[in-house]
Amino acid sequence: MMQMNQDFIKKLRFNENGLIPAIAQDWLDGAILMLAWMNKDSLEKTIQTGQVHYWSRSREKLWLKGETSGNIQWLKAIRYDCDADAILLTIEQVGSGACHTGVRSCFFQNENTKSEQSPISLPPPSDACTEVFKVITKRTSNPEEGSYTNSLLKAGDNGILKKIGEESAEFVMACKDNAPNTIANEAADLIFHLQVALAYHEVDWRDVLEVLALRRSNKQRK
Amino acid sequence: MMQMNQDFIKKLRFNENGLIPAIAQDWLDGAILMLAWMNKDSLEKTIQTGQVHYWSRSREKLWLKGETSGNIQWLKAIRYDCDADAILLTIEQVGSGACHTGVRSCFFQNENTKSEQSPISLPPPSDACTEVFKVITKRTSNPEEGSYTNSLLKAGDNGILKKIGEESAEFVMACKDNAPNTIANEAADLIFHLQVALAYHEVDWRDVLEVLALRRSNKQRK
Repeated sequence: MMQMNQDFIKKLRFNENGLIPAIAQDWLDGAILMLAWMNKDSLEKTIQTGQVHYWSRSREKLWLKGETSGNIQWLKAIRYDCDADAILLTIEQVGSGACHTGVRSCFFQNENTKSEQSPISLPPPSDACTEVFKVITKRTSNPEEGSYTNSLLKAGDNGILKKIGEESAEFVMACKDNAPNTIANEAADLIFHLQVALAYHEVDWRDVLEVLALRRSNKQRK
Repeated sequence: MMQMNQDFIKKLRFNENGLIPAIAQDWLDGAILMLAWMNKDSLEKTIQTGQVHYWSRSREKLWLKGETSGNIQWLKAIRYDCDADAILLTIEQVGSGACHTGVRSCFFQNENTKSEQSPISLPPPSDACTEVFKVITKRTSNPEEGSYTNSLLKAGDNGILKKIGEESAEFVMACKDNAPNTIANEAADLIFHLQVALAYHEVDWRDVLEVLALRRSNKQRK
Protein backbone atom coordinates (compact mmCIF):
# COMPACT_ATOMS: atom_id res chain seq x y z
CA MET A 1 0.00 0.00 0.00
CA MET A 2 2.87 2.31 0.87
CA GLN A 3 4.09 2.15 -2.75
CA MET A 4 0.83 3.58 -4.14
CA ASN A 5 1.37 6.25 -6.76
CA GLN A 6 0.18 9.57 -5.32
CA ASP A 7 0.03 11.56 -8.56
CA PHE A 8 -3.73 11.06 -8.84
CA ILE A 9 -4.23 13.36 -5.83
CA LYS A 10 -3.44 16.31 -8.15
CA LYS A 11 -6.40 15.32 -10.35
CA LEU A 12 -8.90 15.35 -7.47
CA ARG A 13 -11.30 18.26 -7.11
CA PHE A 14 -11.46 19.27 -3.46
CA ASN A 15 -14.34 21.59 -2.53
CA GLU A 16 -14.12 25.26 -1.48
CA ASN A 17 -12.98 24.08 1.97
CA GLY A 18 -10.30 21.83 0.51
CA LEU A 19 -12.32 18.69 1.28
CA ILE A 20 -13.54 15.67 -0.64
CA PRO A 21 -16.11 13.07 0.53
CA ALA A 22 -14.67 9.58 1.10
CA ILE A 23 -16.79 6.43 1.32
CA ALA A 24 -15.33 3.56 3.37
CA GLN A 25 -16.41 0.15 2.04
CA ASP A 26 -15.67 -3.24 3.57
CA TRP A 27 -13.30 -5.34 1.44
CA LEU A 28 -15.23 -8.62 1.90
CA ASP A 29 -19.00 -8.07 1.74
CA GLY A 30 -19.16 -4.60 0.19
CA ALA A 31 -20.92 -3.06 3.21
CA ILE A 32 -20.62 0.73 3.53
CA LEU A 33 -19.18 1.52 6.93
CA MET A 34 -19.09 5.33 6.85
CA LEU A 35 -18.84 8.50 4.81
CA ALA A 36 -16.36 11.10 6.02
CA TRP A 37 -14.24 13.91 4.60
CA MET A 38 -10.61 14.10 3.58
CA ASN A 39 -8.26 16.92 2.67
CA LYS A 40 -5.03 16.55 0.71
CA ASP A 41 -3.02 15.98 3.90
CA SER A 42 -5.25 13.21 5.24
CA LEU A 43 -5.22 11.43 1.89
CA GLU A 44 -1.41 11.56 1.67
CA LYS A 45 -1.10 10.34 5.26
CA THR A 46 -3.55 7.51 4.49
CA ILE A 47 -1.50 6.34 1.52
CA GLN A 48 1.83 6.67 3.34
CA THR A 49 0.75 4.76 6.45
CA GLY A 50 -1.89 2.43 5.00
CA GLN A 51 -4.17 3.56 7.86
CA VAL A 52 -7.13 5.74 6.95
CA HIS A 53 -6.97 9.37 8.09
CA TYR A 54 -9.88 11.76 7.70
CA TRP A 55 -10.37 15.47 8.29
CA SER A 56 -12.66 16.16 11.21
CA ARG A 57 -14.91 19.07 10.25
CA SER A 58 -16.17 19.53 13.81
CA ARG A 59 -12.74 19.45 15.48
CA GLU A 60 -11.01 21.00 12.44
CA LYS A 61 -8.09 18.62 12.58
CA LEU A 62 -6.49 15.61 10.97
CA TRP A 63 -7.99 12.47 12.42
CA LEU A 64 -6.50 8.99 12.39
CA LYS A 65 -9.59 6.80 12.33
CA GLY A 66 -9.47 4.57 15.43
CA GLU A 67 -6.80 6.66 17.17
CA THR A 68 -8.64 6.45 20.51
CA SER A 69 -10.94 3.42 19.96
CA GLY A 70 -8.29 1.25 18.31
CA ASN A 71 -10.78 0.60 15.50
CA ILE A 72 -8.41 1.58 12.72
CA GLN A 73 -9.07 1.02 9.02
CA TRP A 74 -6.43 -0.62 6.82
CA LEU A 75 -6.47 0.73 3.30
CA LYS A 76 -6.80 -1.92 0.57
CA ALA A 77 -7.59 0.21 -2.49
CA ILE A 78 -8.71 3.64 -3.64
CA ARG A 79 -11.04 4.57 -6.49
CA TYR A 80 -12.19 8.05 -7.50
CA ASP A 81 -15.19 8.99 -9.56
CA CYS A 82 -15.69 10.33 -13.09
CA ASP A 83 -15.61 14.01 -12.08
CA ALA A 84 -12.91 13.39 -9.47
CA ASP A 85 -14.88 14.90 -6.57
CA ALA A 86 -15.52 11.75 -4.51
CA ILE A 87 -13.32 8.90 -3.26
CA LEU A 88 -14.12 5.27 -2.57
CA LEU A 89 -11.87 3.53 -0.04
CA THR A 90 -11.76 -0.26 0.14
CA ILE A 91 -10.84 -1.01 3.74
CA GLU A 92 -10.38 -3.68 6.35
CA GLN A 93 -12.02 -2.48 9.56
CA VAL A 94 -10.33 -3.47 12.82
CA GLY A 95 -12.47 -4.06 15.94
CA SER A 96 -16.22 -3.91 16.44
CA GLY A 97 -16.87 -1.39 13.71
CA ALA A 98 -16.46 2.03 12.17
CA CYS A 99 -19.16 3.99 14.03
CA HIS A 100 -18.44 5.99 17.18
CA THR A 101 -21.59 4.37 18.65
CA GLY A 102 -19.76 1.03 18.60
CA VAL A 103 -21.69 -0.59 15.77
CA ARG A 104 -20.23 -1.83 12.51
CA SER A 105 -21.52 0.87 10.17
CA CYS A 106 -22.63 4.47 10.67
CA PHE A 107 -25.59 3.73 8.36
CA PHE A 108 -27.69 1.90 10.95
CA GLN A 109 -30.93 3.92 10.69
CA ASN A 110 -33.78 3.79 8.22
CA GLU A 111 -37.25 5.32 7.86
CA ASN A 112 -38.57 3.17 10.70
CA THR A 113 -35.94 4.15 13.26
CA LYS A 114 -37.52 5.88 16.25
CA SER A 115 -34.97 8.25 17.75
CA GLU A 116 -37.13 8.61 20.89
CA GLN A 117 -36.51 4.99 21.81
CA SER A 118 -33.10 3.44 22.21
CA PRO A 119 -32.06 3.13 18.58
CA ILE A 120 -32.28 -0.26 16.89
CA SER A 121 -29.07 -0.73 14.97
CA LEU A 122 -29.69 -2.11 11.49
CA PRO A 123 -26.80 -3.91 9.82
CA PRO A 124 -25.57 -2.22 6.63
CA PRO A 125 -26.72 -3.80 3.36
CA SER A 126 -24.23 -6.31 1.95
CA ASP A 127 -24.13 -8.64 -1.05
CA ALA A 128 -27.08 -11.01 -1.53
CA CYS A 129 -25.25 -14.10 -0.16
CA THR A 130 -24.33 -12.28 3.04
CA GLU A 131 -27.93 -11.07 3.37
CA VAL A 132 -29.24 -14.65 3.12
CA PHE A 133 -26.71 -15.78 5.72
CA LYS A 134 -27.95 -13.03 8.09
CA VAL A 135 -31.46 -14.51 7.88
CA ILE A 136 -30.16 -18.04 8.49
CA THR A 137 -28.13 -17.03 11.58
CA LYS A 138 -31.17 -15.11 12.86
CA ARG A 139 -33.16 -18.35 12.63
CA THR A 140 -30.54 -20.20 14.69
CA SER A 141 -31.14 -17.81 17.61
CA ASN A 142 -34.81 -17.01 16.90
CA PRO A 143 -36.49 -20.14 15.50
CA GLU A 144 -39.68 -19.51 13.53
CA GLU A 145 -42.70 -21.76 13.25
CA GLY A 146 -42.85 -23.34 9.78
CA SER A 147 -39.37 -22.12 8.79
CA TYR A 148 -37.61 -24.47 6.36
CA THR A 149 -34.24 -23.30 7.74
CA ASN A 150 -35.29 -24.30 11.25
CA SER A 151 -36.49 -27.70 10.08
CA LEU A 152 -33.05 -28.24 8.55
CA LEU A 153 -31.22 -27.05 11.67
CA LYS A 154 -33.39 -29.35 13.76
CA ALA A 155 -32.49 -32.28 11.51
CA GLY A 156 -28.84 -31.72 12.45
CA ASP A 157 -25.69 -32.56 10.54
CA ASN A 158 -26.94 -35.66 8.73
CA GLY A 159 -30.15 -33.95 7.66
CA ILE A 160 -28.34 -30.83 6.41
CA LEU A 161 -25.46 -32.67 4.74
CA LYS A 162 -27.77 -35.07 2.91
CA LYS A 163 -29.13 -31.93 1.22
CA ILE A 164 -25.58 -30.88 0.17
CA GLY A 165 -25.31 -34.17 -1.70
CA GLU A 166 -28.75 -33.78 -3.22
CA GLU A 167 -28.31 -30.14 -4.27
CA SER A 168 -24.84 -30.69 -5.74
CA ALA A 169 -26.21 -33.60 -7.79
CA GLU A 170 -29.06 -31.36 -9.00
CA PHE A 171 -26.56 -28.65 -9.93
CA VAL A 172 -24.51 -31.20 -11.89
CA MET A 173 -27.62 -32.41 -13.74
CA ALA A 174 -28.67 -28.82 -14.58
CA CYS A 175 -25.19 -28.25 -16.06
CA LYS A 176 -25.40 -31.47 -18.06
CA ASP A 177 -28.79 -30.28 -19.37
CA ASN A 178 -27.13 -26.92 -20.17
CA ALA A 179 -30.22 -25.10 -18.84
CA PRO A 180 -29.10 -21.61 -17.70
CA ASN A 181 -32.12 -20.78 -15.50
CA THR A 182 -32.04 -24.15 -13.78
CA ILE A 183 -28.27 -23.84 -13.31
CA ALA A 184 -28.70 -20.46 -11.54
CA ASN A 185 -31.52 -21.84 -9.38
CA GLU A 186 -29.62 -24.98 -8.42
CA ALA A 187 -26.50 -22.93 -7.64
CA ALA A 188 -28.63 -20.78 -5.31
CA ASP A 189 -30.04 -23.94 -3.65
CA LEU A 190 -26.56 -25.34 -3.10
CA ILE A 191 -25.28 -22.08 -1.61
CA PHE A 192 -28.28 -21.78 0.70
CA HIS A 193 -27.81 -25.30 2.07
CA LEU A 194 -24.06 -24.78 2.36
CA GLN A 195 -24.81 -21.68 4.44
CA VAL A 196 -27.17 -23.63 6.69
CA ALA A 197 -24.34 -26.11 7.32
CA LEU A 198 -21.98 -23.21 8.08
CA ALA A 199 -24.47 -21.67 10.52
CA TYR A 200 -25.03 -25.06 12.16
CA HIS A 201 -21.26 -25.33 12.72
CA GLU A 202 -21.00 -21.66 13.74
CA VAL A 203 -18.70 -20.83 10.85
CA ASP A 204 -19.29 -17.27 9.60
CA TRP A 205 -20.00 -16.68 5.91
CA ARG A 206 -17.46 -13.87 6.24
CA ASP A 207 -14.75 -16.48 6.96
CA VAL A 208 -15.52 -18.07 3.59
CA LEU A 209 -15.35 -14.66 1.89
CA GLU A 210 -12.00 -14.05 3.55
CA VAL A 211 -10.58 -17.37 2.33
CA LEU A 212 -11.66 -16.47 -1.22
CA ALA A 213 -10.27 -12.91 -1.00
CA LEU A 214 -6.92 -13.98 0.44
CA ARG A 215 -6.46 -16.71 -2.17
CA ARG A 216 -7.11 -14.18 -4.90
CA SER A 217 -4.68 -11.60 -3.52
CA ASN A 218 -2.01 -14.29 -3.01
CA LYS A 219 -2.40 -15.33 -6.64
CA GLN A 220 -2.16 -11.75 -7.87
CA ARG A 221 1.09 -11.30 -5.99
CA LYS A 222 2.63 -14.26 -7.82
CA MET B 1 -41.61 1.71 -1.78
CA MET B 2 -44.29 4.35 -2.21
CA GLN B 3 -45.54 3.61 1.32
CA MET B 4 -42.22 4.53 2.92
CA ASN B 5 -42.58 6.70 5.99
CA GLN B 6 -41.14 10.15 5.15
CA ASP B 7 -40.87 11.50 8.69
CA PHE B 8 -37.15 10.69 8.85
CA ILE B 9 -36.45 13.44 6.32
CA LYS B 10 -37.03 15.96 9.14
CA LYS B 11 -34.18 14.40 11.10
CA LEU B 12 -31.66 14.78 8.26
CA ARG B 13 -29.05 17.50 8.41
CA PHE B 14 -28.80 19.14 4.99
CA ASN B 15 -25.76 21.38 4.48
CA GLU B 16 -25.71 25.18 4.09
CA ASN B 17 -26.91 24.74 0.49
CA GLY B 18 -29.75 22.45 1.56
CA LEU B 19 -27.97 19.37 0.22
CA ILE B 20 -26.96 15.96 1.56
CA PRO B 21 -24.59 13.44 -0.07
CA ALA B 22 -26.27 10.22 -1.25
CA ILE B 23 -24.39 7.02 -2.04
CA ALA B 24 -26.04 4.68 -4.57
CA GLN B 25 -25.23 1.02 -3.88
CA ASP B 26 -26.20 -1.98 -5.99
CA TRP B 27 -28.73 -4.26 -4.26
CA LEU B 28 -27.03 -7.53 -5.33
CA ASP B 29 -23.24 -7.29 -5.10
CA GLY B 30 -22.84 -4.18 -2.94
CA ALA B 31 -20.95 -2.25 -5.65
CA ILE B 32 -20.96 1.54 -5.28
CA LEU B 33 -22.33 3.04 -8.46
CA MET B 34 -22.14 6.77 -7.70
CA LEU B 35 -22.16 9.53 -5.13
CA ALA B 36 -24.45 12.47 -5.83
CA TRP B 37 -26.38 15.13 -3.91
CA MET B 38 -29.99 15.39 -2.84
CA ASN B 39 -32.13 18.17 -1.43
CA LYS B 40 -35.39 17.69 0.44
CA ASP B 41 -37.41 17.85 -2.78
CA SER B 42 -35.39 15.21 -4.60
CA LEU B 43 -35.57 12.87 -1.62
CA GLU B 44 -39.36 13.23 -1.36
CA LYS B 45 -39.74 12.70 -5.11
CA THR B 46 -37.49 9.61 -4.88
CA ILE B 47 -39.64 8.08 -2.16
CA GLN B 48 -42.94 8.98 -3.86
CA THR B 49 -41.98 7.58 -7.27
CA GLY B 50 -39.52 4.84 -6.30
CA GLN B 51 -37.15 6.30 -8.91
CA VAL B 52 -34.05 8.05 -7.64
CA HIS B 53 -33.94 11.84 -8.11
CA TYR B 54 -30.84 13.88 -7.31
CA TRP B 55 -30.09 17.61 -7.22
CA SER B 56 -27.74 18.64 -10.00
CA ARG B 57 -25.28 21.15 -8.55
CA SER B 58 -23.97 22.14 -12.00
CA ARG B 59 -27.38 22.62 -13.62
CA GLU B 60 -29.02 23.73 -10.35
CA LYS B 61 -32.11 21.64 -10.89
CA LEU B 62 -33.92 18.51 -9.81
CA TRP B 63 -32.65 15.58 -11.82
CA LEU B 64 -34.40 12.27 -12.39
CA LYS B 65 -31.48 9.89 -12.77
CA GLY B 66 -31.75 8.26 -16.21
CA GLU B 67 -34.25 10.83 -17.53
CA THR B 68 -32.40 11.09 -20.86
CA SER B 69 -30.33 7.85 -20.88
CA GLY B 70 -33.13 5.62 -19.64
CA ASN B 71 -30.72 4.29 -17.01
CA ILE B 72 -33.03 4.92 -14.08
CA GLN B 73 -32.43 3.66 -10.53
CA TRP B 74 -35.19 1.85 -8.66
CA LEU B 75 -35.08 2.52 -4.94
CA LYS B 76 -34.97 -0.59 -2.74
CA ALA B 77 -34.05 0.89 0.65
CA ILE B 78 -32.69 3.98 2.38
CA ARG B 79 -30.30 4.20 5.34
CA TYR B 80 -28.91 7.35 6.95
CA ASP B 81 -25.86 7.69 9.12
CA CYS B 82 -25.29 8.35 12.83
CA ASP B 83 -25.09 12.14 12.50
CA ALA B 84 -27.83 12.20 9.83
CA ASP B 85 -25.73 14.05 7.24
CA ALA B 86 -25.31 11.28 4.66
CA ILE B 87 -27.70 8.86 2.92
CA LEU B 88 -27.15 5.36 1.59
CA LEU B 89 -29.51 4.28 -1.20
CA THR B 90 -29.90 0.61 -2.06
CA ILE B 91 -30.84 0.59 -5.72
CA GLU B 92 -31.49 -1.52 -8.78
CA GLN B 93 -29.74 0.10 -11.73
CA VAL B 94 -31.48 -0.15 -15.10
CA GLY B 95 -29.39 -0.32 -18.28
CA SER B 96 -25.63 -0.36 -18.78
CA GLY B 97 -24.80 1.58 -15.65
CA ALA B 98 -24.97 4.68 -13.51
CA CYS B 99 -22.14 6.72 -15.00
CA HIS B 100 -22.69 9.32 -17.74
CA THR B 101 -19.65 7.76 -19.50
CA GLY B 102 -21.71 4.61 -20.03
CA VAL B 103 -19.92 2.36 -17.57
CA ARG B 104 -21.49 0.68 -14.57
CA SER B 105 -20.02 2.81 -11.79
CA CYS B 106 -18.65 6.35 -11.64
CA PHE B 107 -15.77 4.99 -9.51
CA PHE B 108 -13.77 3.52 -12.41
CA GLN B 109 -10.42 5.21 -11.81
CA ASN B 110 -7.59 4.43 -9.42
CA GLU B 111 -4.03 5.63 -8.81
CA ASN B 112 -2.84 3.92 -12.01
CA THR B 113 -5.38 5.54 -14.33
CA LYS B 114 -3.65 7.65 -16.98
CA SER B 115 -5.98 10.43 -18.01
CA GLU B 116 -3.77 11.16 -21.04
CA GLN B 117 -4.68 7.82 -22.58
CA SER B 118 -8.18 6.64 -23.24
CA PRO B 119 -9.27 5.76 -19.71
CA ILE B 120 -9.31 2.11 -18.68
CA SER B 121 -12.58 1.56 -16.85
CA LEU B 122 -12.08 -0.47 -13.67
CA PRO B 123 -15.12 -2.32 -12.35
CA PRO B 124 -16.24 -1.15 -8.90
CA PRO B 125 -15.22 -3.37 -5.95
CA SER B 126 -17.90 -5.92 -5.00
CA ASP B 127 -18.18 -8.74 -2.48
CA ALA B 128 -15.42 -11.35 -2.47
CA CYS B 129 -17.45 -14.01 -4.35
CA THR B 130 -18.21 -11.58 -7.18
CA GLU B 131 -14.53 -10.58 -7.30
CA VAL B 132 -13.48 -14.23 -7.71
CA PHE B 133 -16.07 -14.69 -10.45
CA LYS B 134 -14.63 -11.66 -12.30
CA VAL B 135 -11.23 -13.39 -12.38
CA ILE B 136 -12.78 -16.65 -13.62
CA THR B 137 -14.70 -14.96 -16.46
CA LYS B 138 -11.53 -13.07 -17.40
CA ARG B 139 -9.76 -16.43 -17.77
CA THR B 140 -12.50 -17.69 -20.13
CA SER B 141 -11.72 -14.85 -22.57
CA ASN B 142 -8.00 -14.47 -21.74
CA PRO B 143 -6.56 -17.90 -20.95
CA GLU B 144 -3.34 -17.86 -18.93
CA GLU B 145 -0.50 -20.35 -19.08
CA GLY B 146 -0.49 -22.55 -15.96
CA SER B 147 -3.87 -21.27 -14.72
CA TYR B 148 -5.82 -23.89 -12.75
CA THR B 149 -9.08 -22.24 -13.85
CA ASN B 150 -8.09 -22.66 -17.50
CA SER B 151 -7.15 -26.31 -17.00
CA LEU B 152 -10.63 -26.87 -15.57
CA LEU B 153 -12.35 -24.99 -18.39
CA LYS B 154 -10.34 -27.02 -20.88
CA ALA B 155 -11.48 -30.26 -19.21
CA GLY B 156 -15.07 -29.26 -20.01
CA ASP B 157 -18.28 -30.19 -18.25
CA ASN B 158 -17.27 -33.66 -17.05
CA GLY B 159 -13.95 -32.41 -15.69
CA ILE B 160 -15.52 -29.45 -13.89
CA LEU B 161 -18.55 -31.34 -12.56
CA LYS B 162 -16.44 -34.19 -11.20
CA LYS B 163 -14.87 -31.52 -8.99
CA ILE B 164 -18.32 -30.43 -7.74
CA GLY B 165 -18.86 -33.98 -6.50
CA GLU B 166 -15.40 -34.11 -4.95
CA GLU B 167 -15.59 -30.69 -3.27
CA SER B 168 -19.09 -31.25 -1.90
CA ALA B 169 -17.95 -34.58 -0.42
CA GLU B 170 -14.96 -32.83 1.16
CA PHE B 171 -17.25 -30.15 2.59
CA VAL B 172 -19.51 -32.85 4.06
CA MET B 173 -16.51 -34.59 5.65
CA ALA B 174 -15.21 -31.31 7.13
CA CYS B 175 -18.64 -30.76 8.71
CA LYS B 176 -18.67 -34.30 10.08
CA ASP B 177 -15.22 -33.61 11.56
CA ASN B 178 -16.61 -30.35 12.96
CA ALA B 179 -13.41 -28.55 11.98
CA PRO B 180 -14.26 -24.82 11.50
CA ASN B 181 -11.17 -23.85 9.46
CA THR B 182 -11.50 -26.83 7.16
CA ILE B 183 -15.23 -26.15 6.78
CA ALA B 184 -14.55 -22.56 5.65
CA ASN B 185 -11.83 -23.72 3.26
CA GLU B 186 -13.93 -26.48 1.74
CA ALA B 187 -16.90 -24.11 1.38
CA ALA B 188 -14.60 -21.73 -0.54
CA ASP B 189 -13.40 -24.63 -2.74
CA LEU B 190 -16.97 -25.66 -3.52
CA ILE B 191 -18.01 -22.09 -4.38
CA PHE B 192 -14.98 -21.60 -6.61
CA HIS B 193 -15.69 -24.77 -8.62
CA LEU B 194 -19.39 -23.94 -8.77
CA GLN B 195 -18.41 -20.57 -10.25
CA VAL B 196 -16.17 -22.24 -12.84
CA ALA B 197 -19.17 -24.36 -13.88
CA LEU B 198 -21.31 -21.21 -14.09
CA ALA B 199 -18.70 -19.43 -16.23
CA TYR B 200 -18.38 -22.49 -18.46
CA HIS B 201 -22.15 -22.38 -19.04
CA GLU B 202 -22.15 -18.58 -19.38
CA VAL B 203 -24.41 -18.14 -16.37
CA ASP B 204 -23.56 -14.92 -14.50
CA TRP B 205 -22.84 -15.06 -10.75
CA ARG B 206 -25.15 -12.05 -10.56
CA ASP B 207 -28.04 -14.28 -11.72
CA VAL B 208 -27.42 -16.51 -8.69
CA LEU B 209 -27.36 -13.46 -6.41
CA GLU B 210 -30.64 -12.32 -7.92
CA VAL B 211 -32.30 -15.70 -7.31
CA LEU B 212 -31.19 -15.52 -3.66
CA ALA B 213 -32.31 -11.90 -3.21
CA LEU B 214 -35.72 -12.45 -4.80
CA ARG B 215 -36.40 -15.57 -2.73
CA ARG B 216 -35.57 -13.63 0.41
CA SER B 217 -37.79 -10.66 -0.45
CA ASN B 218 -40.64 -12.99 -1.44
CA LYS B 219 -40.36 -14.69 1.93
CA GLN B 220 -40.33 -11.38 3.78
CA ARG B 221 -43.52 -10.36 2.04
CA LYS B 222 -45.28 -13.50 3.29
